[in-house]
Amino acid sequence: MPKKIRLGILGGGGDSLIGILHRVASQINDNYEIVGAVFSPEHQESIDFAHEIDIPTNRIYKDFDMLIEEELKLPEDKRIQVCSVQTPNFLHFPMAKKLLDNGFHVICEKPMTMNYEEAKVLADAHEKSGKVFALTHTYTGYPMVRQMREMIKAGALGKIHKVDARYYQGWINTIIHDKEKRSSVWRLDPTKAGISSCMGDIGVHAFNLVEFTTGLKIKSLLCDFNYLYEDNQMDVDGTVLIRMDNHVKGVIRSSQVATGEENGLAIAIYGEKGAFRWEQERPNFLYKLSDTEPLQVYKPGHAYNSELSLSGTKLPPGHPEGIFDSMANIYLGAAKAIRGEKYNSGEFPTMKDGVHGMNFIESTVASHKKGNVWIDLD
Amino acid sequence: MPKKIRLGILGGGGDSLIGILHRVASQINDNYEIVGAVFSPEHQESIDFAHEIDIPTNRIYKDFDMLIEEELKLPEDKRIQVCSVQTPNFLHFPMAKKLLDNGFHVICEKPMTMNYEEAKVLADAHEKSGKVFALTHTYTGYPMVRQMREMIKAGALGKIHKVDARYYQGWINTIIHDKEKRSSVWRLDPTKAGISSCMGDIGVHAFNLVEFTTGLKIKSLLCDFNYLYEDNQMDVDGTVLIRMDNHVKGVIRSSQVATGEENGLAIAIYGEKGAFRWEQERPNFLYKLSDTEPLQVYKPGHAYNSELSLSGTKLPPGHPEGIFDSMANIYLGAAKAIRGEKYNSGEFPTMKDGVHGMNFIESTVASHKKGNVWIDLD
Amino acid sequence: MPKKIRLGILGGGGDSLIGILHRVASQINDNYEIVGAVFSPEHQESIDFAHEIDIPTNRIYKDFDMLIEEELKLPEDKRIQVCSVQTPNFLHFPMAKKLLDNGFHVICEKPMTMNYEEAKVLADAHEKSGKVFALTHTYTGYPMVRQMREMIKAGALGKIHKVDARYYQGWINTIIHDKEKRSSVWRLDPTKAGISSCMGDIGVHAFNLVEFTTGLKIKSLLCDFNYLYEDNQMDVDGTVLIRMDNHVKGVIRSSQVATGEENGLAIAIYGEKGAFRWEQERPNFLYKLSDTEPLQVYKPGHAYNSELSLSGTKLPPGHPEGIFDSMANIYLGAAKAIRGEKYNSGEFPTMKDGVHGMNFIESTVASHKKGNVWIDLD
Amino acid sequence: MPKKIRLGILGGGGDSLIGILHRVASQINDNYEIVGAVFSPEHQESIDFAHEIDIPTNRIYKDFDMLIEEELKLPEDKRIQVCSVQTPNFLHFPMAKKLLDNGFHVICEKPMTMNYEEAKVLADAHEKSGKVFALTHTYTGYPMVRQMREMIKAGALGKIHKVDARYYQGWINTIIHDKEKRSSVWRLDPTKAGISSCMGDIGVHAFNLVEFTTGLKIKSLLCDFNYLYEDNQMDVDGTVLIRMDNHVKGVIRSSQVATGEENGLAIAIYGEKGAFRWEQERPNFLYKLSDTEPLQVYKPGHAYNSELSLSGTKLPPGHPEGIFDSMANIYLGAAKAIRGEKYNSGEFPTMKDGVHGMNFIESTVASHKKGNVWIDLD
Repeated sequence: MPKKIRLGILGGGGDSLIGILHRVASQINDNYEIVGAVFSPEHQESIDFAHEIDIPTNRIYKDFDMLIEEELKLPEDKRIQVCSVQTPNFLHFPMAKKLLDNGFHVICEKPMTMNYEEAKVLADAHEKSGKVFALTHTYTGYPMVRQMREMIKAGALGKIHKVDARYYQGWINTIIHDKEKRSSVWRLDPTKAGISSCMGDIGVHAFNLVEFTTGLKIKSLLCDFNYLYEDNQMDVDGTVLIRMDNHVKGVIRSSQVATGEENGLAIAIYGEKGAFRWEQERPNFLYKLSDTEPLQVYKPGHAYNSELSLSGTKLPPGHPEGIFDSMANIYLGAAKAIRGEKYNSGEFPTMKDGVHGMNFIESTVASHKKGNVWIDLD
Repeated sequence: MPKKIRLGILGGGGDSLIGILHRVASQINDNYEIVGAVFSPEHQESIDFAHEIDIPTNRIYKDFDMLIEEELKLPEDKRIQVCSVQTPNFLHFPMAKKLLDNGFHVICEKPMTMNYEEAKVLADAHEKSGKVFALTHTYTGYPMVRQMREMIKAGALGKIHKVDARYYQGWINTIIHDKEKRSSVWRLDPTKAGISSCMGDIGVHAFNLVEFTTGLKIKSLLCDFNYLYEDNQMDVDGTVLIRMDNHVKGVIRSSQVATGEENGLAIAIYGEKGAFRWEQERPNFLYKLSDTEPLQVYKPGHAYNSELSLSGTKLPPGHPEGIFDSMANIYLGAAKAIRGEKYNSGEFPTMKDGVHGMNFIESTVASHKKGNVWIDLD
Repeated sequence: MPKKIRLGILGGGGDSLIGILHRVASQINDNYEIVGAVFSPEHQESIDFAHEIDIPTNRIYKDFDMLIEEELKLPEDKRIQVCSVQTPNFLHFPMAKKLLDNGFHVICEKPMTMNYEEAKVLADAHEKSGKVFALTHTYTGYPMVRQMREMIKAGALGKIHKVDARYYQGWINTIIHDKEKRSSVWRLDPTKAGISSCMGDIGVHAFNLVEFTTGLKIKSLLCDFNYLYEDNQMDVDGTVLIRMDNHVKGVIRSSQVATGEENGLAIAIYGEKGAFRWEQERPNFLYKLSDTEPLQVYKPGHAYNSELSLSGTKLPPGHPEGIFDSMANIYLGAAKAIRGEKYNSGEFPTMKDGVHGMNFIESTVASHKKGNVWIDLD
Repeated sequence: MPKKIRLGILGGGGDSLIGILHRVASQINDNYEIVGAVFSPEHQESIDFAHEIDIPTNRIYKDFDMLIEEELKLPEDKRIQVCSVQTPNFLHFPMAKKLLDNGFHVICEKPMTMNYEEAKVLADAHEKSGKVFALTHTYTGYPMVRQMREMIKAGALGKIHKVDARYYQGWINTIIHDKEKRSSVWRLDPTKAGISSCMGDIGVHAFNLVEFTTGLKIKSLLCDFNYLYEDNQMDVDGTVLIRMDNHVKGVIRSSQVATGEENGLAIAIYGEKGAFRWEQERPNFLYKLSDTEPLQVYKPGHAYNSELSLSGTKLPPGHPEGIFDSMANIYLGAAKAIRGEKYNSGEFPTMKDGVHGMNFIESTVASHKKGNVWIDLD
């Protein structure tokens, strides 16, 4: 008989958007109980937030180290089993590492670390730990993304020869043209956001979607970034040419100044026998193209869908589930792994994806800096 | 400081789709804690289900009467505050009435009752009780439905003159052509489903959407039902001509044999100054038409949206929320009412909607039976 | 070896929209040469227009009677073979009749006549004449409309049980709210427009589309019109409940005050094995729905299309053809008939469609006037 | 009073798709009369085709040189005024040049020439001739493409900072995987098709669309082609990074192996104040994005459209015009220029576009061959 997994939360307090996304997602399938947290660097804020969402405050810790220390004192069957890391980016690595080192499972927001080096260190820690590590590339939880993956694996497209992914947002357009604004937003400050803005924040989702759906690995890339003002040269836009094995080529386009675009993640995958097209803002419609047959529109919840896809759908066809449900599907997969149940490798992204993602981000920066040359990924 | 409302659940156990919809919705905004339930007529099944979703079993009661009896013994600050009624239709009325009579708030699935007479009795009980009664016309929780309501109220369309709503599903097509199947499905058995199949189950949602968005009341109707086989004359399809005040006319179309349609609720509202179009399966896109200006597409989460709409959106634009979020918005509204907080009347449908809905359903049946004549609604 | 058919044109001069539609359509497939015309009641205007479009003026006649008289004097191999009637509605009948009586083929705009009585008289004249009569229900020329017809005929939907057609325009909304405007537009003046505005002008296209695609005949109807001001009671909006054989029911919705709608003709046809949906404003996309398979999107020019559909497509898939091409397809079909070549009955609507259409219009008016009662069609 | 322009046609006979597109387009606005032609290298085929489309055969010439020779003997007011060049690519240059040199206006299919060198020679000939030269980049004739151009010119997007264009077709996927087929199709044979398949045939349309709509010139590019088999290294797919002045960057994607794509030309243009999106397969819908306002959908024929856009629309909103109408708009613009009437520079692409297009194609090949390096355009 399944029992709720004891979940700890790091970050995500107050009006945090990532906080509500994770919190709701963790509750949707009756798998997790929030038993401990450090919602905020300010202890009182953490406690206040615990009151607000009405959870017990006895395990709302002053800070992360205290959480580890105190939880380790508890008997194993009371102790937090998994922590969800939703803090600012630079804390992902130290927290995730310490959690793994101390025998906690980890659910971690992306980017997994600040750089590729950290990612490899974390991978080692993970391997030694034997614990579950789930990276919340949210979009892989959509039933139709899973359907693509499974159909491609089953050969629906034949050999793939072309991939085209895009992640276009426009929100930085509202900031970038004002000198004061662009110099004060953390996302455009390399000391806070890391080496990349656009590619690190959203391009990497497109990268992950390409690899998740096709099952192929990107071998090398050539990247050109763009910035709009000399006084702020963080990438707010970029295009990445990609190469995989066997003449498979493609392009990943990413922008934060695609004016008026909201959350425009999309992918098109072309193969010898057919193609797929999917867009995040209409997540429940998957288009299958063919040279000779009418285009087909797949939707969730149908008997024709794969098991992996169906495991991410709670209601019959025509009842739109959204991004909270997508994230919930990742939490559901992690729950299965934590409990040691059988699960499909498509149920959640893991350490490997995180390491390769950091390799991708660093390579785009390197390619751009070296004058748009080809860089091999590991 | 808000505290979680103590929620009791009636029905909705096992694989119940309505069960998961309500359960998740109740958890999404951190407002409710499930403290008691009768998930199933079989006590053991109820207990097993409580284990499955990992909630305490001490207040999982043998039956509804026991729930009332035992809860009333508890001190008020421990007692269930609100019950969510998700049982088969014929139990809605007796349960809701007894709950109100005993001082519980009620969240109730539709159809509210089996007939108009019961509805009026329930309305009296509600009035006497002074308690909150929320009717879960789920679709009114969508941010873009709320946006329509608020913009219409603010005069965006000017005087309305035409309304066209539709609720098309196809699932009964997979049943109706097989004599055995069609004679065994409860939905087509008048002793179990009540006087109407199509209009009672889904047509009434379209009716409610018309009144919710326009703020107008339907005054009279003329209805023609259809059935496909003489041996089963339950309506599986029907069209309703509607009249409101001042030359406002419209049509409500509803079908359960609209082959291949999934959950095709849609509405178009035409007024002197503009029009709206919206479809449930693409809930985050609201189309505003004009004679002279380019069509506009409203989406959730933008500053241009009304407060009521924004209160139903948790994430920034482009992050699709769906039907669980819509239902959660209704639970959120009910929570505000239960706590005595201020809320917008558009946050949840209430007793009035339920009474008028039952009046609508009975009138469609009466119109059809009398040979498609006009019937006035109260 | 084909030779161009000698075409006469009645009406359609100056800025006439119907004029350019017919003129271009007649030229698209190299089948017709305009040899004579009465473009306008004013002879000089006709001559000026002939100059403008640069055709010889020697057979630009003073009036219609003169055209008949003079053309009959010409040897048969010089004489106009077919006249295209594009005049105001009240002239369709006398012109078409005299043309048929004098041995000319006729291509005629709709409405075919002013009333059902005239329609029947014209049908007699047509039968006696042995000539070709093509009624330009333009929308039947679209490749995807033809595809629906052929696939339905071939059983793709199985037995049909529900039809839902719509023709929504908004242009009268820009007129109706101004007393002076609404009293001066010819379309709302029964002495000029005939007994019906909305149903006669556009509802009848939806009616025709239902019968053209399904191959079924409407047996009876119940209609409710709407008008917005007491001082002008012409129908600007209406809904028609329809019945066909064997429990097939449906609805035709039509409006000229559907604010912001442009030319919103659409149809949905539901059958035991599947369904079709099509919209005039996206004419090259035909949606085939199924209970169990992914929705399919048919497009023109593919090998999977029927011969009738392909005969209406000139370019490969993805090169959008439009309404001029649709009308041209009707002219192409008429050309085949005029030349005595083999053609598919779906290539152009004919007298039968016109007669039944007038029967439909009159019946909608009768049903409305009698208080929304069922009226049988002949 | 306008008189029809005397048009000669080179190529385009038989089942030629380009032939019917040009022929119909030339007839749509009553501006041209076909008076002479060399439809085919075989004289008898030319004559037969003239019979088929029923035009006089006395000026159907044996070959191109004869056409020039004989037409020059005719008095100027009988002589062909303009020739439309629709022959295989390698003939565009010699024919266009000789036509210009002999005082004929020219309407020419793209690619204008086989290489950049020829293009520059032709530009000289054109300048000396003083004649009209129209290059049929068909897609610039769509009303909504023209609307983009005019609104951008008027500042609707503010400063542009990002452009993303795509031209995806899939038809070569049906050929490329069969060794015999891929070695026999002319498009993949560099001796017949020139130095590029994908970029030369369709990528250049996307290039032209970028420059036509933005009014900006591409200054440099970096290109990566793809081919699928070692035995045929013609580009069937490619991505081009582009740079314009002032930090404007973009990407042009083009493919002939985008399986199942039909004629997928599309563009997105992002500027400081807004953005546009448009797709060729839904040509009558233009999307205007904004950071703060609802997305707007522009359609043809409205008073809100620019004069240039409206000049390309013949019918009221909602009556879809298509690619024949788009090409007809280019012929209409050329007619105005030929007659010496006033016209908007957006009414047809001209020599400059052709020269820059050839520069673009050669540069993509050069960039790819040199290992994906940046190449400056002239």
